[in-house]
Amino acid sequence: MRTAMLALLLGAALPALADEGMWTFDNFPAAAVKAKYGATLDSAWLDRVRRSTIRLSNCTASFVSPEGLILTNHHCVEACLANLSSRDQSLVQTGFVSRSRNDEPRCATQVADVLQAMENVTDKVMQAISGLDQTAANEARKKVLTQLEQACEKGTRLKCESVTLYQGGQYFLYKYKRYDDVRLVLAPEADIAAFGGDPDNFQFPRWSLDFSMLRAYENGKPAKTPDHLPIRFAGPEAGEFVLVSGHPGSTERLDTRAELAFQRDLVLPNWLLRYSELRGRYIQYGKGSEAAARIVEEPLNSLENGIKVRRKLLDALHEDSLLEAKSEAEQALRVKMAGDASFGDPWADIARATTIERGLYLPYLFLEGAGGFNSATFRYARTLVRAAAERGKPNTERLREYADTALPRLAQQTLAAIPVYPELENLTLSFSLERMREWLGPDHPVVRQLLAKDSPDSLAAKLIAGTKLADPAIRKQLWDGGEAAIAASNDPMIRLALAIDERSRAVRKRYEDEVEAPITAASEKIAAARFKVYGTNVYPDATFTLRLNYGTVAGWNEDGRDIPPFTYLGKAFERATGSAPFRIPDSWLKVRDSLDMQTPFCISTTNDIVGGNSGSPLIDAQGRIVGLMFDGNIHSISGRYWFDAAKNRAIAVHPAILREALQKVYHADTVLRELGVR
Amino acid sequence: MRTAMLALLLGAALPALADEGMWTFDNFPAAAVKAKYGATLDSAWLDRVRRSTIRLSNCTASFVSPEGLILTNHHCVEACLANLSSRDQSLVQTGFVSRSRNDEPRCATQVADVLQAMENVTDKVMQAISGLDQTAANEARKKVLTQLEQACEKGTRLKCESVTLYQGGQYFLYKYKRYDDVRLVLAPEADIAAFGGDPDNFQFPRWSLDFSMLRAYENGKPAKTPDHLPIRFAGPEAGEFVLVSGHPGSTERLDTRAELAFQRDLVLPNWLLRYSELRGRYIQYGKGSEAAARIVEEPLNSLENGIKVRRKLLDALHEDSLLEAKSEAEQALRVKMAGDASFGDPWADIARATTIERGLYLPYLFLEGAGGFNSATFRYARTLVRAAAERGKPNTERLREYADTALPRLAQQTLAAIPVYPELENLTLSFSLERMREWLGPDHPVVRQLLAKDSPDSLAAKLIAGTKLADPAIRKQLWDGGEAAIAASNDPMIRLALAIDERSRAVRKRYEDEVEAPITAASEKIAAARFKVYGTNVYPDATFTLRLNYGTVAGWNEDGRDIPPFTYLGKAFERATGSAPFRIPDSWLKVRDSLDMQTPFCISTTNDIVGGNSGSPLIDAQGRIVGLMFDGNIHSISGRYWFDAAKNRAIAVHPAILREALQKVYHADTVLRELGVR
Repeated sequence: MRTAMLALLLGAALPALADEGMWTFDNFPAAAVKAKYGATLDSAWLDRVRRSTIRLSNCTASFVSPEGLILTNHHCVEACLANLSSRDQSLVQTGFVSRSRNDEPRCATQVADVLQAMENVTDKVMQAISGLDQTAANEARKKVLTQLEQACEKGTRLKCESVTLYQGGQYFLYKYKRYDDVRLVLAPEADIAAFGGDPDNFQFPRWSLDFSMLRAYENGKPAKTPDHLPIRFAGPEAGEFVLVSGHPGSTERLDTRAELAFQRDLVLPNWLLRYSELRGRYIQYGKGSEAAARIVEEPLNSLENGIKVRRKLLDALHEDSLLEAKSEAEQALRVKMAGDASFGDPWADIARATTIERGLYLPYLFLEGAGGFNSATFRYARTLVRAAAERGKPNTERLREYADTALPRLAQQTLAAIPVYPELENLTLSFSLERMREWLGPDHPVVRQLLAKDSPDSLAAKLIAGTKLADPAIRKQLWDGGEAAIAASNDPMIRLALAIDERSRAVRKRYEDEVEAPITAASEKIAAARFKVYGTNVYPDATFTLRLNYGTVAGWNEDGRDIPPFTYLGKAFERATGSAPFRIPDSWLKVRDSLDMQTPFCISTTNDIVGGNSGSPLIDAQGRIVGLMFDGNIHSISGRYWFDAAKNRAIAVHPAILREALQKVYHADTVLRELGVR
Repeated sequence: MRTAMLALLLGAALPALADEGMWTFDNFPAAAVKAKYGATLDSAWLDRVRRSTIRLSNCTASFVSPEGLILTNHHCVEACLANLSSRDQSLVQTGFVSRSRNDEPRCATQVADVLQAMENVTDKVMQAISGLDQTAANEARKKVLTQLEQACEKGTRLKCESVTLYQGGQYFLYKYKRYDDVRLVLAPEADIAAFGGDPDNFQFPRWSLDFSMLRAYENGKPAKTPDHLPIRFAGPEAGEFVLVSGHPGSTERLDTRAELAFQRDLVLPNWLLRYSELRGRYIQYGKGSEAAARIVEEPLNSLENGIKVRRKLLDALHEDSLLEAKSEAEQALRVKMAGDASFGDPWADIARATTIERGLYLPYLFLEGAGGFNSATFRYARTLVRAAAERGKPNTERLREYADTALPRLAQQTLAAIPVYPELENLTLSFSLERMREWLGPDHPVVRQLLAKDSPDSLAAKLIAGTKLADPAIRKQLWDGGEAAIAASNDPMIRLALAIDERSRAVRKRYEDEVEAPITAASEKIAAARFKVYGTNVYPDATFTLRLNYGTVAGWNEDGRDIPPFTYLGKAFERATGSAPFRIPDSWLKVRDSLDMQTPFCISTTNDIVGGNSGSPLIDAQGRIVGLMFDGNIHSISGRYWFDAAKNRAIAVHPAILREALQKVYHADTVLRELGVR
């Protein structure tokens, strides 16, 4: 393992080993693929796949019909399902099947972005920061990116976002067509979509029907989407060459040892401790009544996924050889750069910055990160307070998330009518206030300010009972009313957001100047050195931007045992216990006798994917969908830090089970016709 | 820090630096103390202090009157207070003041042990294992210890326990006088005893009146205790030489790097994740009603203490320099032993064993460790099932915890009438079943055996509703009835304990043969090498046996800020919020005007203590009590692995606040008279 990891860590800047790599579409190693697999992926192929691939707010998806029909995972639309639910009825539990176009409800905060163009703006950024010290450069870098985004959007109808690749080695503008009207077409019941629940999450063999369908609308009508991917319902062969197009969220394969140690020592343990406790509060709360169980289901599922991921990330960072290999890779590059006196020691610069970060982390997390104020209404209050203040400033002087190009999306998220449950608000806010007091200490100024004569419970109760921000009409008034409306508001959550704003901004400023500025400057240096020494035939860390990777349909060997790459429907019925999360829904039990128990269910492949790739199409060499990515195996989690070619596997829903479900269980005839079945 | 730690790690086998060290009474460095502090601690002094110091089942305590009166911490009697409580009334919340001897209720499972003699039996153990392979030696070692204990108890009325010191460098028999009738005399309300609660736990400055009083009884009458310690109510001076006599629970300062890495990678993260979640479940459950809050209070407090400790232990092990220093110290000793061909590489042996341990840890934890069956009635069932089976075997063939010398205590614990709350049993059992399924996986044989057609909730509900083991009379029948009664029982918890017993014993056997045996053998070798190279003027790791350590009354410097060693009553009133855990009880508010706000409250000292020392007397050179140890500062937690002389501080309740409370708040006149006040 040691050798493999060192090779990888150097290899992050060498032609990738095995089938590792999350390649940008402008730098895909088509020649290497041709040589190894004989597949010809020309620019027409790449363009069509790119224009058929969708970035949702939290996932990937793809167009599967010319009329805007979208295929993605169930867990990618779980928040939408929860938003369309109430105390009395949960679409997460019941599922949803649209019977006609008029019947497709809108996912209030969802968008679908399709990448149209990529522009390299590295030179413009470098020019803007040239000659500046680290702190000034950090501010100038943000300003120029804001300017470039703004200029890009002017005169086009595209959504322009800057992207930092290779830890600052390249800066790009990515230009998207955005659909901001996305509606729900079909979702199975959570019991089958997430069959196996948290225990089976990141496991394989697996039997989760983790799919759903959305539709993009334009001007109130289904969008025209000539670029879309056909589905090959028979699915792929074992060993077949396959690709995944999608938006891997975030990896840290190029991060330094000091940055990884910071994750290991502070970020991961702190998160895991706090959110394991919240998990316990959610579970216990959900036992109170069926309504309680319904409203807690979606946040609990999301939390449990986060816990499992971070638990395995911490395991990965406890592999001392990984950190040692990092040190060796850093030393190797340091030696190669020894002749360049101006190079200095950027790794030491980063280590120094992370030492400062250790001192700033908790106040940043609880105040600026709002970790002490875990409540939907507080998040609304924070956004309304800051949007009002920031919109009064010139565009480039604002906090980046309030720049003009960001405001339409922010308004959509802030003003959407989605349910807010006061009982859940009380739970999460009281919890987070109590943990803020624990981690910052009862004598921290903000803790004294808020809790000198209140308990976390009593303060949360007052705030939640008093705030009106659960009402979207009130939020609209405050959004439209701007600074004057905020100043005049006596909403207690608005007053709270105002009361802690100065201290929150102060810790953010310190973080930006003392941590972000030196780390960004040093990372740019390291990135430039890597390009110089190892060349440019490399892939950047994941940044929730479009990537393409390739691999094969294959299982792996676990402790001497071969895991085959396919599972079949029959086994799901064998494993069912009758109780969640191993309960097969009635809709399936009713038609059990008509189902083909030999239908393939899930697929294991060697593709290099991470969170964010959920919902990605698994594609054959002809550009047809042969699977729907929804997870990785347990070894895939360490893919955040390095790619283990022997054991890291991606998991997809097999298209045959999609057809079986649509035909025999959900009777979704119109959808099937739209997919070209029969 | 690095240098200091390396010095320490070597220094664990060198005359201790600073005032570090948990010395056994037979090897106390009286000469060094005389030279440094001018104090003469002769054998009469040591004998008197030893015979005045008490080991409770979970803490330390001391005799403070000739009539068996015992001083210890509130948190040491919290379980007793909870056992004497009900859904309707909590002595944890209300406190308790006995008004006469007839009024002192018994703590049903508490004992008070006083060390009478120590016998070195190392040669006998070495003789018993001579020439055996590791596995056989491991069994023979246990057998001879059982035999030695049994022989020791025959013909005396003493309780004999074997003790392993220096990781196997020495074996002792410790001989105790045991009082198994221990009664409650006085406890303040938790609000003042644990003022500051979990947020202030392991913090200083501090204002917790963490004291209580018990009394040892013999033959139904207060015990005669001519050896006891007078209290010097004025308390110590800043800088004064002070000692702590007590029973530090467990340290791992002599453990190897591989053993510490195992703690860091598996034991601590797993525990923290699971119990943080249980914390959340407890807290949420306690919000349901006042009765719920009452019955959850004691287990929650205990859990939160455990979480804080382990959180900081994990922090300590993330200090890479600690592990590097371990490696260097190991290498230094390896080099010194290079001439001895028979020495081999015991560190490598231990590392190999911990690799096996990584594979066995989870099944051991959930099955043999009963981590999957967190329920008082399951623990009763396990004990009853195993006691019945083991008592049928010859004494030396039994699992050690069922040897003849252990049975009286086991019976006391198993048969005591203490409350069992089904609602809490459901909570903890369902939780632990769910986590067993998570960590072992839904396809583990025991998980399939139990949960193939049940959810954790439904199985827990059936077991708790069906078991009668909450009734002590039923437990008595099964204890007395032995194997036949167990075989005939249809109690579902007994059936469960039987159903998993074979698999549990199997994983224990593998653990003993493949992990414990090689680690014990290698540890004995390392211990012998340490004695050979560094001599015997050293202290062993803590083992919850009697130790004496010395230091001074002193604060420390925290990030450039001097923390003074005393706190005063007035500040507690300033910090009070009116809500738990910062609520001052009514009994204090009523007499507020009569209190001297300048009364010293808590004391910081440099003594080297850990958990288990709670309740220890802080003693001056004349053998008078000048404080009651109850905690350490946040830096003391890493004392498990090394002693940080600059920052590790012990915390005591000041005797002046004890007198103030007894006189003005609790009007405990008879107790005061017994303590010789006025």
